[in-house]
Order: sequence, then C-alpha cells, then structure tokens
Amino acid sequence: MTANQTPTWIAADWGTSNLRLWAISNDGTVLDMRTSEKGMGQLAPDAFEPVLVDVAADWLKTADTVVACGMVGSRQGWVEAPYQTAPCSVCPNTMVKAAVQRDGLTVHVVPGIRQTDPADVMRGEETQIAGFLSLNDDWDGIICLPGTHTKWVHMSAGEVVSFQTCMTGEMFSLLAEESVLRHSIAESGWNDGTFLEALSETMSRPERMAGQLFSLRAAQLVHDTDPQTLRARLSGLLIGAELASTKPYWLGQNVALIGADAVSQPYLAGLAAQGVNVAHADATEMTLAGIKTAHAILETE
Amino acid sequence: MTANQTPTWIAADWGTSNLRLWAISNDGTVLDMRTSEKGMGQLAPDAFEPVLVDVAADWLKTADTVVACGMVGSRQGWVEAPYQTAPCSVCPNTMVKAAVQRDGLTVHVVPGIRQTDPADVMRGEETQIAGFLSLNDDWDGIICLPGTHTKWVHMSAGEVVSFQTCMTGEMFSLLAEESVLRHSIAESGWNDGTFLEALSETMSRPERMAGQLFSLRAAQLVHDTDPQTLRARLSGLLIGAELASTKPYWLGQNVALIGADAVSQPYLAGLAAQGVNVAHADATEMTLAGIKTAHAILETE
Repeated sequence: MTANQTPTWIAADWGTSNLRLWAISNDGTVLDMRTSEKGMGQLAPDAFEPVLVDVAADWLKTADTVVACGMVGSRQGWVEAPYQTAPCSVCPNTMVKAAVQRDGLTVHVVPGIRQTDPADVMRGEETQIAGFLSLNDDWDGIICLPGTHTKWVHMSAGEVVSFQTCMTGEMFSLLAEESVLRHSIAESGWNDGTFLEALSETMSRPERMAGQLFSLRAAQLVHDTDPQTLRARLSGLLIGAELASTKPYWLGQNVALIGADAVSQPYLAGLAAQGVNVAHADATEMTLAGIKTAHAILETE
Repeated sequence: MTANQTPTWIAADWGTSNLRLWAISNDGTVLDMRTSEKGMGQLAPDAFEPVLVDVAADWLKTADTVVACGMVGSRQGWVEAPYQTAPCSVCPNTMVKAAVQRDGLTVHVVPGIRQTDPADVMRGEETQIAGFLSLNDDWDGIICLPGTHTKWVHMSAGEVVSFQTCMTGEMFSLLAEESVLRHSIAESGWNDGTFLEALSETMSRPERMAGQLFSLRAAQLVHDTDPQTLRARLSGLLIGAELASTKPYWLGQNVALIGADAVSQPYLAGLAAQGVNVAHADATEMTLAGIKTAHAILETE
C-alpha cells in the first residue's frame, strides 16, 4: 500500500440526523466514504468518539486528524464551536478541538455563523459555501441552500454579509405529515403546472397565504382534488411565500443554489419562473470541498 | 319528580376529540351536563351508540330524542350528514338520522356547510352561528369563530354568504410543539406588547412572514430571548398573518366573535388594535342555543 492509498485524515459532516465520513489521502484523494444514522440529535458529548471509532476504526490506524462540520459543533454536540458573527469570512480559521480519549487523535470542529440583527444562525452551510468559493474564485452574489431550514446568504468578497433562514422544508413536512392536511396530501408525486401556479399566487398575494392552507383539505372534500396535485400545490404555496419573503435577496442578483437534486428542483423552477437564472452545485460535493479548505488552513498554520 | 325535572331530549356536541351532552327538559331547562373524551376521531360508526348509552343511560330512560352537531356527522362519523352548500341558511332543517339499536331512540345529526369556490367546509360552527342568531335577531355582519381551524363567516339575512378557514391554531401547535421552535417556545406565558408588535409586523408586511418564524429560534440562540416572549411573538406573527388574509372579511364590518375566553382574547386584542370593535359570545352557550334551535325545528315539522 502506497502513501497515496493510505488515509491521512478524515472529513466529517456530522449533522442532527446523520454522519458522513470521507477517508482522504495526503494528496487529497477521497479513498472511501461511509455514512451512519448516529446523528448529533441522539448522542451525548461522550458518545461521539465511540461512534467515530466504530465507523472508521481501520482508517484511524493511519489517519490521526479529523475535520468536522455541522451540528457536531452546537451546544448539544461533541464540543461547542462558538459562532462567528456576520459579516465574516466563511473560511473556517477558528476551529475548536473536541475532547478525545484516543492517543494522537485530533478532532477539529468548524464553527457556525450567527447574525445579530435580525437574529439568525447557520451550522454546516458555511462549510458548503466555503467549498463553493474554493471552486468559484471571486464569486459574489446570493447563495441559496434549500433544505429543512433553507438559507439565503448574501456573499461579497469572500464574506457572509447577511443571511436569512426560512423553515419552509420543515413546514412542508409538518403540514403534509402531521396536520389535518395529511388526509389529503400524497406521500409522493408532483405536478409542475400546479406547483408554479400556487407559487405565483403567494408571490403576488402573500397576504392571502394564511387562508390558503386549509383550502387544500377542503378542495379534496368538496371537489375530490387528487392528493398528488395537492402535494405540488402545498409546496408551491410555501416556496412562493419564501420567495416573497426573500425577494430583497434574489431580485436582480447573481444567484447560486447549493443542494441535492430533489430539494433543489422546486427552487430552480420557482426562481426560473421569476426570471432568475441560477447556477446549481451539489451539496455533498460542496461540503467535502469546504472541509478540504478547512483542512488546508490547518496545514498552513 | 315532575315533568320539568325529567330529561325529554339530549343535546350533543360531538367533535373529533370530545363529546359534550346536555339533558334537557320539555320546557328547555338544562338539567345536567356531562363530557367524555370519546370523540369521533377514535370511534367506528357502530361505537357511537354504546358511548352515548354509557354516558347518558339514566337520561335515556325518559329522553328518546338526541340532536347532535359536529364531526359526528362527517364521513368518518356516526352517519354522514351531507354538507349544505353556501349561500344557505344556518337553520339546520336538513338533519339526518343515525342508525340505532335501541327501541324508540332517534338521533338527529346536524349537517355542516360547504363552499365550492374557494373550496371550504365547516362542521359544528354552523350550529354555534345558529345559536348566536337565535339570541341576536336580525344580526348581519362577520362572525369569527377562533379555534384549531378558525372560521370567518359573512352573514346576511340569516344566511351564510361566504366563509374562510385559517389553520392558525393548528399551525401554532405544530410550530410550538413539533418544530425546531419547540426548544425556544414556553408551554405557557404571555406578553401583550410583544404579541401586538408581532401582529402589527405581519399585518403590515405579510410578505415577510416566511422569514420570521426561524428568527424565534435564532433570537434565543443569539440573544437569549425568554421563551414566554417568544410564545407571544409566535402567536402574534400567526394571528397577524390570519388578519392580513381575512382583511376583506373584517375591515369596516360589524364583527362578532364566538369562542372560549382563552382562544378569543388574542383575536379580540388583535382586532381592537386594528380599530375593530368586536362583540364576544361564549362558544359553549352558542352551541347549546344552536342545538335548541335545531330541536325546535324538529318540533314544528
């Protein structure tokens, strides 16, 4: 086995629900990738190291450095990595070391970013943005990171100028799965036309939003509207409300979107309908690129 | 025991979660009231009669007529009482009889009301409105019935002209108890100033709503804002969004509110802040008055 086939460090994206690990050689090659469902949400601080050892014992024989981003650095995580305060660089040069038992192991945790007025926070997205910037020199504009809690981030000269979080993904899940609408919303399926029509409705008349949600249930009771159409309509109403709220971010701006395909498509379609052309980057690739950027900063220190 | 102390009929408000029964004498006196948690949501059609007999066996010795309103008349209830279609009278003169085993017993179920465009439905509220009209002759205007699914109803000449449902109560519960905000929202407590300020924000800038919910979580993380203040702020944001949506109903109109005190107070305060003076009637009293109206119609048939 040559040095180039031996892991020398480990990249970790450790979120609330999941853990994703990459074994990386000294020339930056990704040798292997593994995932676990042991997310931060179910781990006490002293349970993180055993999970790491359990998933990556063989890698740890040669890799003694771990760089981790995400909720692993929250107050409920392995070690609290205090937020940087925007405006600030996304380059994670203020990492915090987690407590470990294993001799020679060092775990660096990337801090999140907070904003004081209006109050907002991110953890994990800053690393994806750092990865995007590492691959797109001198990129200025708006970055949208759709997900459970979608972030809209104004970037300028490598700094987070301001950002805004919308709970659209979580609202969709709660309404589709937990509310009275669950009786009328399909678990999957889609209709582009319905989605764009609903999005346009809340974009142009956002003040009507509160009165439109129950109408999804009523449409099925009164008109027997099919549940897949109602699923697309719920998504359109909610993403339309988000686009109305974040219009000062994206209107007339240079916009890039970082996300997995499934969660990105509705945003790309919705923004295109508003005349916004959006560059699209994969979330996992940007996370890995961002962790590599953080590791490179460690090397030069 | 005189005839006036003997139940001759039973009024039932049978909702999704609860059942409320009143024993009523031949001169309309309420002799007794009982409640049960055996709501429609947990009962198969053939389980309703045993629950009724279990709760009110002694009353049924002399009372052979039951008049019931609420979800008991839904497709999943004891018997489906098909919706009347608005515009229509709230006087429940199209009751449906439920199937019963017991000799001599008759159970009449009050129908709900539906609207075709935009689609909407109510079940139970129509009876509260009928009760309100029976106590307020020639009343025209808007009736607001706050609750899990708040109704705004335009009444004219004893008819429901149109109505609109907002899921504000259910949204509040989902966000405060099931979403990421649950970590930051107190289970009780209040702050009038915070509530009215938040309500004013979404009333005047409803397009910002989607971006303001996560800020409740962030406010605690960044500024350590206390959870009771955040509870009042969440309520203010949501009721403000509802008032923005229903403005065509209440602006410049004669408004009455039917509801229990706890659920009514935020609406009364919010509407007062918008310069709307609102009459307030108790929901339980209006339900009973409405069921009495329905029973009186039976008597005259």
